[in-house]
Amino acid sequence: MDVTIVEVSPRDGLQNEARILPTDAKIELVRRLIEAGARRIEAVSFAHPRLVPTMADAEAVMEGVPRVEGVSYAGLILNQRGLQRALATGVDEVNVVVCASEAFSRRNQNCSTDEAMAAALEVIDEARSRGLFTTLTLATAFGCPFDGEVSLDRVVELAGNGAAAGVHELALADTIGVGTPNQVRELSQQIRSAVGDGPGLRFHFHNTRNTGFANAFAALLEGVRVLDSSVGGIGGCPFAPAATGNIATDDLVYMAERMGLHTGLDLTALMGVSAFLTDQLGHEVPALLPRAGAFP
Amino acid sequence: MDVTIVEVSPRDGLQNEARILPTDAKIELVRRLIEAGARRIEAVSFAHPRLVPTMADAEAVMEGVPRVEGVSYAGLILNQRGLQRALATGVDEVNVVVCASEAFSRRNQNCSTDEAMAAALEVIDEARSRGLFTTLTLATAFGCPFDGEVSLDRVVELAGNGAAAGVHELALADTIGVGTPNQVRELSQQIRSAVGDGPGLRFHFHNTRNTGFANAFAALLEGVRVLDSSVGGIGGCPFAPAATGNIATDDLVYMAERMGLHTGLDLTALMGVSAFLTDQLGHEVPALLPRAGAFP
Repeated sequence: MDVTIVEVSPRDGLQNEARILPTDAKIELVRRLIEAGARRIEAVSFAHPRLVPTMADAEAVMEGVPRVEGVSYAGLILNQRGLQRALATGVDEVNVVVCASEAFSRRNQNCSTDEAMAAALEVIDEARSRGLFTTLTLATAFGCPFDGEVSLDRVVELAGNGAAAGVHELALADTIGVGTPNQVRELSQQIRSAVGDGPGLRFHFHNTRNTGFANAFAALLEGVRVLDSSVGGIGGCPFAPAATGNIATDDLVYMAERMGLHTGLDLTALMGVSAFLTDQLGHEVPALLPRAGAFP
Repeated sequence: MDVTIVEVSPRDGLQNEARILPTDAKIELVRRLIEAGARRIEAVSFAHPRLVPTMADAEAVMEGVPRVEGVSYAGLILNQRGLQRALATGVDEVNVVVCASEAFSRRNQNCSTDEAMAAALEVIDEARSRGLFTTLTLATAFGCPFDGEVSLDRVVELAGNGAAAGVHELALADTIGVGTPNQVRELSQQIRSAVGDGPGLRFHFHNTRNTGFANAFAALLEGVRVLDSSVGGIGGCPFAPAATGNIATDDLVYMAERMGLHTGLDLTALMGVSAFLTDQLGHEVPALLPRAGAFP
């Protein structure tokens, strides 16, 4: 596998859709993703159900998904309570989120970035000791809707904290889809230079301003080999119907495979999952491949 | 100017829209584009009105557009008859199109690629002798809907023919939006290596499969400094409402400026032109910036 795609549609995709899918449909989505070749799947969030009601059935989803050799399930967590739920359900990975911008951290997690990081490092330490694969995601790493520009030095510092604590993977998230390829290059190079070859590097792009796939290409150029995407590109904000969500797995796989990189995913099967989601969500998905067709 | 954007909305954009705008609206579009900073504008096509009825009023458009110091107007031409019309209207540039794939050439121009190239070289020679800036566009350079893959060697050979004839600029067009960044890199490098520093290199991308902006970034990395785009990203096929057209000028300018490159275009003004087009065409345009908003 030249590129590992972390499929985030069950979590970041469905989390931001207006229609809440029933648990059975979520499980069916995961089942179809595995059939299409997905091997790392961010299946659930253990955020508080009051804050993220779309993910309130995380335990039921994890109970229903098939256990397949080689498939790794991740759960997003924000705190110790989330970790306990994650451990109880038996996910293989936890994705611990810290917001790089102060304003976003306070609004999203009700604490400062430093407080969130201190809590995250404890959680990561415990998750590791329990044998889980751990990811530290730095959200709003490319810009914040409240603070505007986010300091590159600050993101690199936070990444260094995670690396020092032994996290397995560092993920840089362009939460609001403002990033451009030069930022990808600078973040990749400076973080690599700061943390060495310890944790793996992973990126999470949204295509909100049509830079998502250019950013993915920039990451590949930097040698990054783990990218998040969401089949159909679902996950647009329910309050802005035209906004796109995560970069679409369908379109990312098209680009990567035509560039000679192997993703292990089947494009035709992925477009079938997009059609399933279109039906389930009751609206067109933003991915373009299902409309335009594969080539050649 | 670090990047020169050739604004193709009046031609490649409007040509492929279901609704034919009245001449006055086309002239108003050009006027607003100039106000937004556009300096190279592909304003009209001199293809036969029976084949491209949306462009039948080319003479009237060219009569009505303002003549502004520093603004260069281009007309697309396919043959000698088109050149005579172009000369009569006083465009500053001609864009001569040859299809790199045989099947597309026969369907689009009713002749083989070699026949089209022989005619193009005559037209280019005459246009140059009349003092016009000349571009040779190689259409379907990234793939053909009928032939599938198009030979890279063939595209490089055709580019060499154009360079030998003294064309000022070579444009590589991803007519059906199938290209990926590796193709941009290979075409750029091999054509540069074949033709040296003679003609300038220009690329024309469609975002049909969400690779258009990654391709634009790849071209910038190769030192290409002339890119086509269409404000609002208009130009999708009228028979596929969801299909996107050219890469959107709004989104391209956002990416380029945020990467520290200067385009000379004003993003707020461009989004105003997108709003004008939304109103005139009666549907949303594919550009994402007008929906998401600029940042920071």
